[in-house]
Amino acid sequence: MSSFFTRDQIADLAWGAAFLGAGGGGDPYIGSLLLRQAMLSVDQIRMISVDEVPEDALVIPNGMMGAPTVLIEKLPNGNEAATSLRRLEGVLGKTAYAVMPAEIGGLNALMPLALAAQLGLPVVDADGMGRAFPELQMSTFHVHDQRVAPAAITDENGSTVVIHADSDYEVERLARATVVAMGATCYLCCLPVSGAQLRISAVRGTLSAAIGIGRAVREARSRQVDPFAALIGYLRASPYYSSSYVLFDGKIVDLDRQTSGGFARGAVRIAAQPPQQGNMEILFQNENLVARHDGVVRAIVPDLITVVDRETAAPITTESLRYGQRVKVIGCSAAAVMRSAKALSIFGPRAFGLTDPFTPIEELDQQWASR
Amino acid sequence: MSSFFTRDQIADLAWGAAFLGAGGGGDPYIGSLLLRQAMLSVDQIRMISVDEVPEDALVIPNGMMGAPTVLIEKLPNGNEAATSLRRLEGVLGKTAYAVMPAEIGGLNALMPLALAAQLGLPVVDADGMGRAFPELQMSTFHVHDQRVAPAAITDENGSTVVIHADSDYEVERLARATVVAMGATCYLCCLPVSGAQLRISAVRGTLSAAIGIGRAVREARSRQVDPFAALIGYLRASPYYSSSYVLFDGKIVDLDRQTSGGFARGAVRIAAQPPQQGNMEILFQNENLVARHDGVVRAIVPDLITVVDRETAAPITTESLRYGQRVKVIGCSAAAVMRSAKALSIFGPRAFGLTDPFTPIEELDQQWASR
Repeated sequence: MSSFFTRDQIADLAWGAAFLGAGGGGDPYIGSLLLRQAMLSVDQIRMISVDEVPEDALVIPNGMMGAPTVLIEKLPNGNEAATSLRRLEGVLGKTAYAVMPAEIGGLNALMPLALAAQLGLPVVDADGMGRAFPELQMSTFHVHDQRVAPAAITDENGSTVVIHADSDYEVERLARATVVAMGATCYLCCLPVSGAQLRISAVRGTLSAAIGIGRAVREARSRQVDPFAALIGYLRASPYYSSSYVLFDGKIVDLDRQTSGGFARGAVRIAAQPPQQGNMEILFQNENLVARHDGVVRAIVPDLITVVDRETAAPITTESLRYGQRVKVIGCSAAAVMRSAKALSIFGPRAFGLTDPFTPIEELDQQWASR
Repeated sequence: MSSFFTRDQIADLAWGAAFLGAGGGGDPYIGSLLLRQAMLSVDQIRMISVDEVPEDALVIPNGMMGAPTVLIEKLPNGNEAATSLRRLEGVLGKTAYAVMPAEIGGLNALMPLALAAQLGLPVVDADGMGRAFPELQMSTFHVHDQRVAPAAITDENGSTVVIHADSDYEVERLARATVVAMGATCYLCCLPVSGAQLRISAVRGTLSAAIGIGRAVREARSRQVDPFAALIGYLRASPYYSSSYVLFDGKIVDLDRQTSGGFARGAVRIAAQPPQQGNMEILFQNENLVARHDGVVRAIVPDLITVVDRETAAPITTESLRYGQRVKVIGCSAAAVMRSAKALSIFGPRAFGLTDPFTPIEELDQQWASR
């Protein structure tokens, strides 16, 4: 059932998207500014469910691609997304019925709304991950053999590169080279899907979920009640993130982070808040990948791990982690479709070079409780 | 007036194209093999003049892009060119009437003929340089404000990247990044031109000229007469290369060559054949750029400088230069359109970082004679 996205929801969406980014996806602050700009003369954007998309209608997932750290210095001019979409429509010989976020994590939850406002299109309340991931093939579309190509990438000069390749891994490789040549940040429209395909592959309702997460925390804070109780409460009532836990509470005592191969990779170590003892170590590649409590895995990709400020519950992206920050670590389950054997082969622990097997966070929690 | 290209002309074309490559353009040997393969069941390819192309017909210049040194190890599968052409036709919504070489130097003189044979299309007897150059904007098309984009680049897997950009320099930059990601060699169809545009910008008759150069030397050698007299004689009778000279005769005594930024850059020094004295130094970036005789410029880009074997007159590409080789240096004039002020701003000495001004080879020859 369709609803309407309004300006006063931008902050909630940005908050929720930062949380669902699991440390990655880019800081939604820039996204908020761009969306606010796009909505100056647009009161509302129609948000439709997957079921409202006609079977044969064309939906185009989109978002920014590149290094979020660069985006802060090199702002988009605001026309990249529309140029990219028009090129892709030209290749397909078909007009888009709606747009949607490729990923709900980070600033890319907001960018498709700015595009929707600009073009007067509806946005589909869904994405292809239920979180953020660093590479193009890491989505439920790929799990269901829906191809990333053709993909159109546009930079701030309006230059556009259209990629055709059978393999999503090839598209990722060629797109990454283009992104670097374009100055490490540009706009991507890709993965043209029909309503029928969306019914098979989309992770549904994630735009609403992100808004809801943000709203729950904001309302708790304005009522001066515990934002963590509100956050966990909201997540547990949601369809995908229902197994949610505060995994750890402490202070960052060590941080090792390099930018290599276009990614922020590293590890953060958090010492427990006294009188508790012990340490949590989290490995990340843009997104948080695995959280170990005194060496024991407490949560692992594709389940979500987000580090948040221990007072405000504000999410902290991996590039914003700092020595001495007081934080809590929240873990929650990924959508069921993200945990299938095929899905795990694409974005499970092994895809990130981890040797630990995937174990659902709810099982890890039981094991931890009964240790 | 149209003529026909036949298998027995392949060797002559390869020879002439190597000469017109001015040290670059890639060794035509691989091109010969691929063209021979493409002509196994094709007796002849129609070669048409620029005037035979209807005003509004679409002609697509094409060739390989990348590092010729890599091409020797990573052979094309033979379908790249057709895939690239079909993608470009798709973008344009129009079918190609004919193909043509983007550059007549090196292996790229032969590749469009292989494509023509494969698709049963005619090839236009012309190119956009009358020689070889390393970058996409270095052509008479660019001089006449005809744009490289859209450009389609295809690799041996059939993956294709289509580039749209207003600036030819941007296309070059984005294409170069793609070429590197594709493994340093791939096929390029670009610069869609109409018959009307070709009449303005093309360097005409260069395919015939390359074949004629090869034939003149082959016939001289088979009659056991001086191949240099035959070569210079043919060039002087041609419309573009009419100011032609043997600039030097000697032995390579020093060679400094690095592969950097995707180019073979360096300098070669040749000591005169006794009883003559003195040295010639040639600077190159894939192609030979400037030849100095005891410090005095004898020829400079865009005029052509080619180093050849001093016995057989076989052209030696810059990557094949070796210490101790006995060589002659041939210089000849570029087409008049290549020497205009605008042309020189695009591929004159300054475009290659040289501080010497452009002076036509015939003037330099007079200065040298009267020194």
